[in-house]
Amino acid sequence: MLEKFLLTRNKTKQIMQPLLIEDYIPQAADFVSPPKWHLGHTTWFFEEFILSKFIKNYSSFHPKFGFLFNSYYNSIGARTKRGMRGLMTRPTVDEVYKYRNSIDEQIVELFHNQDKIEPIEFQEIETLLELGIHHEMQHQELFFTDLKYNFHLNPLEPIYSKDCYVEDGSNQAKAWIPIPKGNYDVGYKGRGFCFDNELGPHQVYLQEFSILNELVSNQEFIDFIEDGGYKRHELWLDEGWSIVQNLQIGLPMYWQKKDSNYYQYTLAGLRKIRSEDILTHINYFEAQAFASWKNLRLPTEFEWEVASENFAWGKRWEWTSSAYLPYPKFQKRAGSVGEYNGKFMVNQMVLRGSSIVTPKEHSRSTYRNFFHPQIAYQYNGIRLVKD
Amino acid sequence: MLEKFLLTRNKTKQIMQPLLIEDYIPQAADFVSPPKWHLGHTTWFFEEFILSKFIKNYSSFHPKFGFLFNSYYNSIGARTKRGMRGLMTRPTVDEVYKYRNSIDEQIVELFHNQDKIEPIEFQEIETLLELGIHHEMQHQELFFTDLKYNFHLNPLEPIYSKDCYVEDGSNQAKAWIPIPKGNYDVGYKGRGFCFDNELGPHQVYLQEFSILNELVSNQEFIDFIEDGGYKRHELWLDEGWSIVQNLQIGLPMYWQKKDSNYYQYTLAGLRKIRSEDILTHINYFEAQAFASWKNLRLPTEFEWEVASENFAWGKRWEWTSSAYLPYPKFQKRAGSVGEYNGKFMVNQMVLRGSSIVTPKEHSRSTYRNFFHPQIAYQYNGIRLVKD
Amino acid sequence: MLEKFLLTRNKTKQIMQPLLIEDYIPQAADFVSPPKWHLGHTTWFFEEFILSKFIKNYSSFHPKFGFLFNSYYNSIGARTKRGMRGLMTRPTVDEVYKYRNSIDEQIVELFHNQDKIEPIEFQEIETLLELGIHHEMQHQELFFTDLKYNFHLNPLEPIYSKDCYVEDGSNQAKAWIPIPKGNYDVGYKGRGFCFDNELGPHQVYLQEFSILNELVSNQEFIDFIEDGGYKRHELWLDEGWSIVQNLQIGLPMYWQKKDSNYYQYTLAGLRKIRSEDILTHINYFEAQAFASWKNLRLPTEFEWEVASENFAWGKRWEWTSSAYLPYPKFQKRAGSVGEYNGKFMVNQMVLRGSSIVTPKEHSRSTYRNFFHPQIAYQYNGIRLVKD
Amino acid sequence: MLEKFLLTRNKTKQIMQPLLIEDYIPQAADFVSPPKWHLGHTTWFFEEFILSKFIKNYSSFHPKFGFLFNSYYNSIGARTKRGMRGLMTRPTVDEVYKYRNSIDEQIVELFHNQDKIEPIEFQEIETLLELGIHHEMQHQELFFTDLKYNFHLNPLEPIYSKDCYVEDGSNQAKAWIPIPKGNYDVGYKGRGFCFDNELGPHQVYLQEFSILNELVSNQEFIDFIEDGGYKRHELWLDEGWSIVQNLQIGLPMYWQKKDSNYYQYTLAGLRKIRSEDILTHINYFEAQAFASWKNLRLPTEFEWEVASENFAWGKRWEWTSSAYLPYPKFQKRAGSVGEYNGKFMVNQMVLRGSSIVTPKEHSRSTYRNFFHPQIAYQYNGIRLVKD
Repeated sequence: MLEKFLLTRNKTKQIMQPLLIEDYIPQAADFVSPPKWHLGHTTWFFEEFILSKFIKNYSSFHPKFGFLFNSYYNSIGARTKRGMRGLMTRPTVDEVYKYRNSIDEQIVELFHNQDKIEPIEFQEIETLLELGIHHEMQHQELFFTDLKYNFHLNPLEPIYSKDCYVEDGSNQAKAWIPIPKGNYDVGYKGRGFCFDNELGPHQVYLQEFSILNELVSNQEFIDFIEDGGYKRHELWLDEGWSIVQNLQIGLPMYWQKKDSNYYQYTLAGLRKIRSEDILTHINYFEAQAFASWKNLRLPTEFEWEVASENFAWGKRWEWTSSAYLPYPKFQKRAGSVGEYNGKFMVNQMVLRGSSIVTPKEHSRSTYRNFFHPQIAYQYNGIRLVKD
Repeated sequence: MLEKFLLTRNKTKQIMQPLLIEDYIPQAADFVSPPKWHLGHTTWFFEEFILSKFIKNYSSFHPKFGFLFNSYYNSIGARTKRGMRGLMTRPTVDEVYKYRNSIDEQIVELFHNQDKIEPIEFQEIETLLELGIHHEMQHQELFFTDLKYNFHLNPLEPIYSKDCYVEDGSNQAKAWIPIPKGNYDVGYKGRGFCFDNELGPHQVYLQEFSILNELVSNQEFIDFIEDGGYKRHELWLDEGWSIVQNLQIGLPMYWQKKDSNYYQYTLAGLRKIRSEDILTHINYFEAQAFASWKNLRLPTEFEWEVASENFAWGKRWEWTSSAYLPYPKFQKRAGSVGEYNGKFMVNQMVLRGSSIVTPKEHSRSTYRNFFHPQIAYQYNGIRLVKD
Repeated sequence: MLEKFLLTRNKTKQIMQPLLIEDYIPQAADFVSPPKWHLGHTTWFFEEFILSKFIKNYSSFHPKFGFLFNSYYNSIGARTKRGMRGLMTRPTVDEVYKYRNSIDEQIVELFHNQDKIEPIEFQEIETLLELGIHHEMQHQELFFTDLKYNFHLNPLEPIYSKDCYVEDGSNQAKAWIPIPKGNYDVGYKGRGFCFDNELGPHQVYLQEFSILNELVSNQEFIDFIEDGGYKRHELWLDEGWSIVQNLQIGLPMYWQKKDSNYYQYTLAGLRKIRSEDILTHINYFEAQAFASWKNLRLPTEFEWEVASENFAWGKRWEWTSSAYLPYPKFQKRAGSVGEYNGKFMVNQMVLRGSSIVTPKEHSRSTYRNFFHPQIAYQYNGIRLVKD
Repeated sequence: MLEKFLLTRNKTKQIMQPLLIEDYIPQAADFVSPPKWHLGHTTWFFEEFILSKFIKNYSSFHPKFGFLFNSYYNSIGARTKRGMRGLMTRPTVDEVYKYRNSIDEQIVELFHNQDKIEPIEFQEIETLLELGIHHEMQHQELFFTDLKYNFHLNPLEPIYSKDCYVEDGSNQAKAWIPIPKGNYDVGYKGRGFCFDNELGPHQVYLQEFSILNELVSNQEFIDFIEDGGYKRHELWLDEGWSIVQNLQIGLPMYWQKKDSNYYQYTLAGLRKIRSEDILTHINYFEAQAFASWKNLRLPTEFEWEVASENFAWGKRWEWTSSAYLPYPKFQKRAGSVGEYNGKFMVNQMVLRGSSIVTPKEHSRSTYRNFFHPQIAYQYNGIRLVKD
């Protein structure tokens, strides 16, 4: 466990290695965070939930870092407003790395003194450490998606790394996978780590359906665009149509059209769209409108979970038609970490699978990711279903 | 059918009878409409979907009424912006009543000439007339809820009618109704009228649960308030908590507290709250927080539908914990009326049952009402469930 | 004085005579008020500042009318929010007329009992009555401008009166009137009524300049439009240019262009623009840009006042290039009526003259009208000056 | 001239010397800019207005720096939106310094090749160079005020330099300076540098008045606060009162009250307020309300200019009661630099004098500084006048 902790902590530093100090600072929108904040917040998570709880008379690294690096835990207290994370010049990047190192050392020391801790308490520490590791993996993914968002507004189109062209993807031949109707078990039943929102394994009844083995490609979405997809209200949900009209949207996020060619901004720079690549950065409204245009539909999260063993997944977060709601007998985790998932169960849609920037160990067929339907800055894609 | 049409049209006039001309005009918020607009819009529905389609060379009553009275049908065209319905001094109330009469007469005439119409076409007319009748019943309910909202902002606290004290309700003894787990059929399977969103009758699997025979009373909610319910973040969904904090909410809609007494504005004037009456005008966030406080939960829409034959309902729209989503194999109605339901299937929650101001004939156990979770101006209430 | 009071009160009723009840209600923007509110507010002015002060144990007509009809007097207390004046269905129009009659009768009675009042107190009553009369005249003008604004949003283009085509005006031959440099006296020095903001008569030094005897015509402004006036940033003040860009403005308020013809909405309905008529409904930014385009400028308020005896004025409020600021030794009136003018002396521009809808007795060459520079719904026009 | 150029350019680098790279990036509000942007923009000014105009076939340092570093020159073209200056991670701080050096070298070279340039053209270059130098001095001042604003939001209260405690100021004994009425000359008449908005020297007539030799102290403003100054509507202009009410303001910018002590954030850190220091960071509304409370007033800009030779000034920008408007016969400078001053002549107030962070060579008694009345982040103060 401690090894996994150190590997994860190290990986965070590794993926930030190409950054210049300037890149650590800005926050271009409320829904993304600066790299410096991700560094500090993931560290604070271990300090707040483990060190400050299980070390007697623990003295915090800095009395104001809790205010700076708490994300949304009301039970812990006051914090920097969401949209002000990019205004903090201090602590410096260097100081935040020092903060990381200090906390890491104290966690290691805590484990080395394991024999001085009550077994039941140590078990709780392990549980929280595992949660913290998975929490940090989530932020590793957010690091990429947030950086991309921050960078794409810059007319200089900064390159994170020439090797980070992750928008590709070779599709195999398309095939429909039929799933018979019946009662199925869903939800996490294993013994490893999972989030509280996956628990409450339970039965559901599914109608018969078929699901595609492959995700939608850029070319398919270009066909939608060129068939007037963004101009045909009858394909859209009303709230999606309002956004399209008000913001005059006619292309997916990060796309540009010059002359008659399509381009997309990537972490490897601006690239001409390759038609065979897998479509990405699609919001729920676009996914749903595209499916309507095809006379098909998106899977529910349970259809996806049941069918998932029959296809390869892991390149895009796949929009489902399920709203993010509690499973039967859902229980929040006890304590402040109970604010992790449950309080967001309204007005969001479930995405299943994982994306090309999700850490491999942070991926399960029962994993329930969730975003508001207008969100496209994740590596989201579309898988289609027919009845 | 024609009789039902005339009865419904007449009832609309009847419920508006206590109004003064001044009352017909204002719109106090985007989500409510003025009585004059309801009068015009329900009439336009028959003109647009029946007369203009099935009468050859039909000449509209007024060339601009379509623009004024179209609500949200993109396939029909441009229209008054939602928030501007209360700014239109003309047409006068009198002219709108003339409009109603004229359209009614032409509908009657159309039916009297039934023998000159192809049977298949006449069947379509009947289907649309029935839809229009149910549409008008919906607006009869909205008339009450919208008027209440418009009136309550007036410091003079206008009275619609002394007899319209509908907030009452005598609770019988509370009892838990147990429902066994298993597969159940849900959705409308009858031969009468229903909306497209109720179709696609299908099987669902339900866990075992128990549901209360009675709705939450004012006294129970006062207990919640006085136990600090509006001040305990851990009871709330995050988006609900933000609203409570930003708007400094501490009481349900239409409630006031003077000295240590609670009052509520009703269409019969301001009244002291009676503790035994059924709680009303609760939004989803409040309903969910209240259930959390009780360590109970709201039913899903399918739990509600399956259990509903075991209890009396019809006094409040009852919040369910289900998001408003399409049923399996959902098909929008063909044509413009397809915009009626399907395009709203995101970011809203389902309410079941019906309320004290819902026309009796407009009530079914499969009926799926839907509102955004922050909406409280309907006669909404809370029914609780335990696992 | 009493006769003048009754004449003025009567005139208000007269100009509202063409209205239907529906017309009395809506408020289409924060900066305009409904006719019913104007009726009530002008009445409240006499009740609040005279009756409630000079009648012992005065019992107000209605305990909540103060809340409803106070405009902006902080020293008097809480009031309806500015933008909610159009949401009040009650008091009815009829009740407001009764309110007027009751207050008028009490004012008359107060004057008939003049001999029972201390002379010094009676003098104060007369002063306030005169202020109230002029206040009501201001609202008579606002009645027209506000009604026009409310009506123009209605696609039915309501007509207040066929005879109310006040946009006309035959220009005489243009001529430049030269004014020599030197010290001049400005400000009100007479013995009649004037507002506090005109007092502090004082000397100013003016440079030599010439001013046109005539106002700018529609044709001249059409020339500006067709020369790209709305598209040339260099003609505009920065804040004006932002508005033009953000709201995509290319025509004056109330104008439309169909095919290649210009139309304007008037209180007599939609009319084709007559090129020889005097331009109206121009905001300060437009006036300033137009003057720049002509290589001329607007007069200062003192240039206007000094030159005004040499030309005819009274058809349009004429924008000056002077900000609305206090005169030397400016003193607010004592008491609540001190809130009438002084507190608005920032961010507004002075207009001089008066307009075609200003009551004749409410017009002086020293009168200082003031509006924010983006305001065009008054009957504003442009007079040009050269050095 | 070239020497002055190099001195000025060098001083900019000097004052930024205490910064860390992180400090160069954020922009905490639309009205302030990041240090990196100030560095780039002042450099771009010389590149755009001199190098690109007077060097044949000039090839710009970077094709997109014009877009990044243009502030508000419409005649030059598209640019980064005002509020997005803090989102640009690139160019790096280092690259911007390289940009500075490159442009500086080219300016020096241009001057060394003076003999190859037409004298009339060289004169124009000198004029623009001088404008650029003064432009850079303005940005040196803005550097301090903007940095202070960015820093003060940080709960760590960063210190720019312990030596930068510029809020102090020892008042001498107060004395009234009487100025007789009469005609006076105002405006810049010298032969040195001045801005276009100071030109048009002209006569004005002033009433008799007296002006204080000293600025208002912290103690005097504390007396205002403790006498309820922020709670007495009658002291305030209406727009100021709205701000005070809506934002619940009760202290000047950068002030805090802990227990019963007042503190202020300074570039040398948080300090206890010293009562004898000169008040600073006051907006126009506060200045005007304070003067009202004293039964005194602010000077007009001409009163200030005429009286200024009789008192010491230069510690605070002093609010005048004059709106920022063109002088008689005002002419914008030709070309794009004409956008420098003239287009802002509406809705702003004139400040005279200069502040403790204004470069000494950038200070004249005829200098007209201007800000919107709600702006307090400059080192603004109050000087009082009586009639």
